[in-house]
Amino acid sequence: MNTLQTKPYVIGLDLGGTNSVFGIVDQRGEIKATTAIKTQGFDKVEDYVEAAVTALTPIIEEVGGIELIKAMGIGAPNGNYYKGTIECAPNISWGKGITPLADLFSEKLGIPVALTNDANAAAIGEMTYGVARGMKNFIVLTLGTGVGSGIVVNGQLIYGCDGFAGELGHVIMDYENGRLCGCGRHGCLETYCSATGVARTAREFLTNSDEPSLLRDMNSQDITSYDVSMAAAKGDALALRVYQFTGEMLGKACADFATFISPEAFIFFGGLTKAGDLLMNPIKESYEKYVMPIYKGKAKFLISALDGSSAAVLGASAIGWEV
Amino acid sequence: MNTLQTKPYVIGLDLGGTNSVFGIVDQRGEIKATTAIKTQGFDKVEDYVEAAVTALTPIIEEVGGIELIKAMGIGAPNGNYYKGTIECAPNISWGKGITPLADLFSEKLGIPVALTNDANAAAIGEMTYGVARGMKNFIVLTLGTGVGSGIVVNGQLIYGCDGFAGELGHVIMDYENGRLCGCGRHGCLETYCSATGVARTAREFLTNSDEPSLLRDMNSQDITSYDVSMAAAKGDALALRVYQFTGEMLGKACADFATFISPEAFIFFGGLTKAGDLLMNPIKESYEKYVMPIYKGKAKFLISALDGSSAAVLGASAIGWEV
Repeated sequence: MNTLQTKPYVIGLDLGGTNSVFGIVDQRGEIKATTAIKTQGFDKVEDYVEAAVTALTPIIEEVGGIELIKAMGIGAPNGNYYKGTIECAPNISWGKGITPLADLFSEKLGIPVALTNDANAAAIGEMTYGVARGMKNFIVLTLGTGVGSGIVVNGQLIYGCDGFAGELGHVIMDYENGRLCGCGRHGCLETYCSATGVARTAREFLTNSDEPSLLRDMNSQDITSYDVSMAAAKGDALALRVYQFTGEMLGKACADFATFISPEAFIFFGGLTKAGDLLMNPIKESYEKYVMPIYKGKAKFLISALDGSSAAVLGASAIGWEV
Repeated sequence: MNTLQTKPYVIGLDLGGTNSVFGIVDQRGEIKATTAIKTQGFDKVEDYVEAAVTALTPIIEEVGGIELIKAMGIGAPNGNYYKGTIECAPNISWGKGITPLADLFSEKLGIPVALTNDANAAAIGEMTYGVARGMKNFIVLTLGTGVGSGIVVNGQLIYGCDGFAGELGHVIMDYENGRLCGCGRHGCLETYCSATGVARTAREFLTNSDEPSLLRDMNSQDITSYDVSMAAAKGDALALRVYQFTGEMLGKACADFATFISPEAFIFFGGLTKAGDLLMNPIKESYEKYVMPIYKGKAKFLISALDGSSAAVLGASAIGWEV
């Protein structure tokens, strides 16, 4: 009897700015039980961990007890894999310093706990349960509020010298007139190709032209990427151009990324991918236009096949198998 | 007695466009014997290998015979590590197709042979004998006729899905008015930051201003990076600005590279590094200015410590230890 058979489950924790979602997951990526708590409202991390373990206890019993659980994986903002810490997470009430979250959970639960950022968790998730099964060299780009990335080379996630490698949302795409980024610099990929970037592009296009658009019926400041996608789905030309612009920018960026690892695939994850071909076609066209000749036609462009609502939990849980 | 003691040497081959230089190297990076042949003038690769083995035979005997040699490592243009082939090397008379060079040498010599491109060889060389000893995450940038790169992550060189990863000389730095690159595209890093790029920048600066410069004494088309460095050493303001521009561009590029692997160090290799602080200071200043806050102050900027004339042979030989 091997370890995998004796301990058939891992716990995944998708630690978001609002909710913390837990799942107990088997080797095939099936979520056997799930629970959630609010992330915020705790002054101390110890109180957060206490509340989490209280919520986890009944679902751990439900699957047969802690003896059947190999490890826990956490996907968290500003997660440092090497140290198991969350470092200076500005949006979490108890996470502003250096918080040894993995150790705290490990002490309470008595199992190994590993932690990384959500994009790295997504990459491990794709390799374990998703479209990257069997791949050794690929890049996951998460297109949500920001743009995150997880990079796998030789079958291993890249963590770099400090645990913070893989911030491809912050390569600079425009040194001259770049948009202000949350990181304090200008022109980062994320300011164009995140959900908020798409909304910014729409506002720019509306301001810089008199072109009619369904989006003009809204208060400009209220426009979200969802509104842009709805307008595009109705054939709104300006909204379609927003996706064209976004995809072209992503394709250019991926062409540069190819010079690093010559990946087998680029895998896109997160809310913006719901736009489907509207986004993916310009990405592919722009990539093939800008990429170095030796890389042409080699990389696949895929959308994550993990179920949207549970993908982040699955990604986090996958780190548990790597412990 | 372990293998390293019974087989204390490797052969390194630096296969350049003009000369092929061989060295027999020990574990500490000392070259015990050396020889060379012309790379060109052979119609068939078999004739090239024949000539190479004829030149090698006496130096192999000199160190005690083939029994003492563990393997051979080759650094070559368009070298594919996975296949041991040179693929479509436009400047080598016998290398225009897909040439199984590693296999041919292995058959003739009766030892394992590994092959990669010269920048990857330089990276392994730095890790084995040079300034990257003990490092697990670093980038070597070779600043010669072109700009090459070797990227090491988790202590392993990145080869990517096809053996051609690590072409950082071909990230695009300017999408609008980029210089034409040998790869057929525009704006690649190599068009600015190679030796030829430095000469192009000097010519541009001379054309676009009336500023006095020692370089105006020369025929503009004859200016090389060496002339620019000589003028800069004499305090020529225009030549100094050329290095400032080159270093700033490299610093910007390295700031983007940090988002990939968060390296412990950037290591610069090749002719342009002779400019020393003239180049390195603007690289560091520009890097710290443009890099994402979480990476600030972390990466070292180093110049290769491998002896210039033998560095390429040492780099190639280092691949032999990895076989």
